Amino acid sequence: MAKRLAYMGPAGTHSEQAALTYDPSADRIPFHSITAAASAVDSGIADEAVVPIENSLEGSVTTTVDLLIHDSKLFIRHELALPIKHYLVAWAGTSAENIDVIYSHPQALGQCRGFFATNYPNVDEVASMSTAAAVEEMLAKGPGAAAVASVRAAFLYGTNILKEGIEDNANNMTRFVVLAPSDHQPTGSDKTSVCFSFDEDAPGILFSVLGEFSKRGINLTKIESRPTKQDLGRYIFLVDLEGHREDAEISETLQSVESQVSMFKVFGSYPRYSLSS
Amino acid sequence: MAKRLAYMGPAGTHSEQAALTYDPSADRIPFHSITAAASAVDSGIADEAVVPIENSLEGSVTTTVDLLIHDSKLFIRHELALPIKHYLVAWAGTSAENIDVIYSHPQALGQCRGFFATNYPNVDEVASMSTAAAVEEMLAKGPGAAAVASVRAAFLYGTNILKEGIEDNANNMTRFVVLAPSDHQPTGSDKTSVCFSFDEDAPGILFSVLGEFSKRGINLTKIESRPTKQDLGRYIFLVDLEGHREDAEISETLQSVESQVSMFKVFGSYPRYSLSS
Repeated sequence: MAKRLAYMGPAGTHSEQAALTYDPSADRIPFHSITAAASAVDSGIADEAVVPIENSLEGSVTTTVDLLIHDSKLFIRHELALPIKHYLVAWAGTSAENIDVIYSHPQALGQCRGFFATNYPNVDEVASMSTAAAVEEMLAKGPGAAAVASVRAAFLYGTNILKEGIEDNANNMTRFVVLAPSDHQPTGSDKTSVCFSFDEDAPGILFSVLGEFSKRGINLTKIESRPTKQDLGRYIFLVDLEGHREDAEISETLQSVESQVSMFKVFGSYPRYSLSS
Repeated sequence: MAKRLAYMGPAGTHSEQAALTYDPSADRIPFHSITAAASAVDSGIADEAVVPIENSLEGSVTTTVDLLIHDSKLFIRHELALPIKHYLVAWAGTSAENIDVIYSHPQALGQCRGFFATNYPNVDEVASMSTAAAVEEMLAKGPGAAAVASVRAAFLYGTNILKEGIEDNANNMTRFVVLAPSDHQPTGSDKTSVCFSFDEDAPGILFSVLGEFSKRGINLTKIESRPTKQDLGRYIFLVDLEGHREDAEISETLQSVESQVSMFKVFGSYPRYSLSS
């Protein structure tokens, strides 16, 4: 039986492209949100979920990060990274010169701000819930409407591509993670993601905790902070480190960190993704 | 002449409420984005701009943070924090029972997810560019439509309030900063915001830099990371610390940090905001 793979749909989103890249033979099941895709794994409707966690321009996908911190018992089992290209698409009858309204998710519109300022300074921008929904709204609106969407959405909906790669910054990549009921066994080239927080004032203790990694020469590939959702100015720290949580030295370090903090959670260990792979 | 204060409009946004709270006697000038409000100060159209920088649930307002890092020469001159309350508003003729569509910015809709799941599981949610734009779209749509907006927008547009405080988490606060051509003189109770990054692999150097603050007992109130916008996995670190950049010990520390990093920028020193003030 093929793996059942949940993702944030509808078909045509970058998440669907990531799901296709991760496992082309899986049954892909669209959900209306990242949270719903993860819940589908919790409830057994799907085996795994592919969700975006970080973009090279926008930073963390906070819905996914906060889900891992607060609301989910799922583990990170894999990661992969995809280039994000935006396409200006329209009806077959609409040319690049006679566009009067452009639909997309506010984030996608924001990533093409320079392109629109130069080429369409007076065209209306209308917000959609996703880039794929933008294509549906564009098609419903009729000639004169365009949408910013993925090449996959252009293909699935059979729209015309007016312009390819309209994003302002070509270094636009998104890292996706695969959430599952268990993480991955050691492969020799792994990463581990954890989070922790402190009851007391953070700065001194954060320095001490980071020292646990530093003194053992454990490389941290990411450090960030998220709000606790309790008080403004109180944070949960997230760290990605090289190595697997079952490696003796990593295991010892994580135990030492856990003993110094008030909240500690391991999101999982998984094979490190190489962009060249 | 009254101070000319730029903010992200239209009137009725939480940013306008922050501008009112910061300086009730100022001339408030709405702009269509955070970036445009800041540019107005750069070009002399406005004296200062009030922009959101951090929310207790969502985390950093990345547009503002990235503007300070990459695109602006403005300084942070003040900070203030406001509670964020969402209101369900509608036409006078629309009751809470006969709503069939709800407009708002996707973030505001997200912050009321639980309320909608319980009370309006089958009602359409439609994305708007801002909570104030949502009220305009709701009014244009007519009876049966509702919007999630601020009490200020409800007041300005004369809409009916169906329900107050529909946000899922009552600890919803936003911190705003005032951007200006210069920062604030020392007051004795100040904060300083800086950012820095490294050419080499960050972890060991980050630990060393944080040690500069730690060994002098300088309290850090915030640490976060943002993408460099070049490579996925390379970060710029942002630190808020207690004290003014003209204080002798802070000045010495910042010089020492600057000598260890490849990129360094001071966003400014400003009076520390107290929630009870």
